[in-house]
Amino acid sequence: MARIVMKFGGTSVGDVPRIQNVARRVKAEVERGHEVAVVVSAMSGVTNQLVDYVRQTAAIADLREYDTAVATGEQVTVALLAIALQEIGVSARSWLGWQLPIRTSDTHGSARIRSIDTTIVEERFKEGQVAVVAGFQGLSDNNRITTLGRGGSDTSAVALAAALKAERCDIYTDVDGVYTCDPRIVTKARKLDKITYEEMLEMASQGAKVLQTRSVEMAMNHRVRVQVLSSFEDKPGTLVVDEEEIVEQAVVSGIAYSRDEAKVTLIRVPDRPGVAAGIFGPLAAAAINVDMIVQNISLDGETTDMTFTVGRADLKRALATLEQNAAALGNPRIVHDATVAKISVIGVGMRSHTGVAQQMFKSLSEKGINIQVITTSEIKISVLIDEAYTELALRTLHTAYGLDAG
Amino acid sequence: MARIVMKFGGTSVGDVPRIQNVARRVKAEVERGHEVAVVVSAMSGVTNQLVDYVRQTAAIADLREYDTAVATGEQVTVALLAIALQEIGVSARSWLGWQLPIRTSDTHGSARIRSIDTTIVEERFKEGQVAVVAGFQGLSDNNRITTLGRGGSDTSAVALAAALKAERCDIYTDVDGVYTCDPRIVTKARKLDKITYEEMLEMASQGAKVLQTRSVEMAMNHRVRVQVLSSFEDKPGTLVVDEEEIVEQAVVSGIAYSRDEAKVTLIRVPDRPGVAAGIFGPLAAAAINVDMIVQNISLDGETTDMTFTVGRADLKRALATLEQNAAALGNPRIVHDATVAKISVIGVGMRSHTGVAQQMFKSLSEKGINIQVITTSEIKISVLIDEAYTELALRTLHTAYGLDAG
Repeated sequence: MARIVMKFGGTSVGDVPRIQNVARRVKAEVERGHEVAVVVSAMSGVTNQLVDYVRQTAAIADLREYDTAVATGEQVTVALLAIALQEIGVSARSWLGWQLPIRTSDTHGSARIRSIDTTIVEERFKEGQVAVVAGFQGLSDNNRITTLGRGGSDTSAVALAAALKAERCDIYTDVDGVYTCDPRIVTKARKLDKITYEEMLEMASQGAKVLQTRSVEMAMNHRVRVQVLSSFEDKPGTLVVDEEEIVEQAVVSGIAYSRDEAKVTLIRVPDRPGVAAGIFGPLAAAAINVDMIVQNISLDGETTDMTFTVGRADLKRALATLEQNAAALGNPRIVHDATVAKISVIGVGMRSHTGVAQQMFKSLSEKGINIQVITTSEIKISVLIDEAYTELALRTLHTAYGLDAG
Repeated sequence: MARIVMKFGGTSVGDVPRIQNVARRVKAEVERGHEVAVVVSAMSGVTNQLVDYVRQTAAIADLREYDTAVATGEQVTVALLAIALQEIGVSARSWLGWQLPIRTSDTHGSARIRSIDTTIVEERFKEGQVAVVAGFQGLSDNNRITTLGRGGSDTSAVALAAALKAERCDIYTDVDGVYTCDPRIVTKARKLDKITYEEMLEMASQGAKVLQTRSVEMAMNHRVRVQVLSSFEDKPGTLVVDEEEIVEQAVVSGIAYSRDEAKVTLIRVPDRPGVAAGIFGPLAAAAINVDMIVQNISLDGETTDMTFTVGRADLKRALATLEQNAAALGNPRIVHDATVAKISVIGVGMRSHTGVAQQMFKSLSEKGINIQVITTSEIKISVLIDEAYTELALRTLHTAYGLDAG
């Protein structure tokens, strides 16, 4: 007998037959003797429709009202799932954010969970009742409905698992786990049995898009064991766990990529203290996120070149911001390139192994792929390359690091 | 300065432009210096979609979960209307049933309002804020969402008006008031400026379908002045008020009709005490509503004929129930006719005027329309006729009672 939290996303509850399928998955866990809380998202497409209504109504909407409207999607699915469970003989009831309550900050539209009162849910567990909890939503101190932002249901599930001290938080989705690389590109990609929180964070933020980053951070902080698995197939997925739980750690666990980047280079900016602040201060003020940054060494002792990447969607605004501040930066030449891709090699094993970066550079070089920018962290090496070589780079590296399926 | 409640139904908030139209109507009242609470229904079609989801999920659903799902329709519209009001410079916020709260019984799916706490709404009135209140929904003592049943938003509005001691409850709808007769049939029908609660109750239950019967009863009990008017045209509607408010009362205020009836006659049932109970007891047990009942005088001293009407949709079940109990009723011959219509002449003036019924019988007879059944109440005379004569009967009576527009 264990206590588990199961979470189903929008695709998994996209229509009534799928909700009935979810009910059967839940019933199977109940029949194994587990205490089960289920967190569900809105039916796929519903939240978008609600957001669209709000946008049609006003360009800038009161976020408290926005939250009141968009939280209804989950309210419908919890009720339908409770009904579907009862229909197949499983005792169940729905819980909305304000009913438990799930207390959050009052930063509407992107609220943070502060506490979840699980007293009543745990009482009902004793009676064999399944708790069907609305994801994505909570209650502010002002007694208003809040929402956690896109993908917030993952965070709801992990937070509930932490509050319930659940043995596991199973995140059911439309993929069957976390892969060593995107299997649509690298056909030899393998599903990972286990991955560490740190690696998952890098995979998620690098574009794997399986789990919301915030939910992984929360899982890591509260040591919640998370499993990513398929709603539609009955087989184990990928466990996201503490490093200590992984006995045989590969040096490289996975390779991620992103095509959402654009590169900007400022040629001949004055090489003096404060110039970086002069560039990135105005960008930060314009809420433009800067990712990779490289500053070349100064050859003439007076000027240097500065290269960095921004989100492709932000490129236009970034260039405008830089133009506005050009005088203060010594009027550098500004060049940009949106046809780039970022390739990242990820693995906690890098901490204890050398030569991982060297392997990457060598493999790419052998295929004639030029590296434009390099950044590294403790468990990740990222390079920026010409977008046209994305697939080739991924397949090359996947083989080079011995990740290919047998 | 007055305090008013405005209520907009599903058609009036059917899409975002219509919600914006509602916001403009509300703003106009605010600019007249009024304190305004607005009650809204779900966007037209939304509640049906939600009910359909529930039905797809289970044949018999937990009504607590049903209510949780179907109450979301109003939750979306209150948020959108609050946003639309803010967008045109009107201070507004949404209130859900559980937020005020609107306390109801726990008879889910058809809950009754017990009390509405208006403290906070009245405080906000002082700050010039409009309260946008979700219709149709409330909160049970078990902290669960309840709904009031179809058309419940009218009841929400009247109950809120009573709790707020509002000067008026304006029910905006897709018709511009209550007419002396259905204007689609009687082109000379006139819009009534005023109608009494009692007459409105008869008009509503006779098929005028403008206001939910329960809301009229509540208005009558709490002496709430209700106005029925159009969401789409800017002109006065019909006031539903106390009899004393109507100075010049017409003898007949309106003529209603219903084509939803079917006639059943039992020929030769024993004429002895208990036979009526023997017929109508089993029908009531089968939840079949019986409307008009006529028992002929016994000609032979031993048997009699019994005629009554049931809803046309219930006819088949009614006949089956009667067949089952035929032996106990002396095996009467059972005949039925679903091609009938009920025509009702309504007016509180009947109480003090004689000859109203006589006028009806004479006028119908002059057109060769046979009366099959007659029933009367203090302020209403209803006759059952061949359905084919419905339009002719309505036009004839409308002229006979002097109701035709100049």
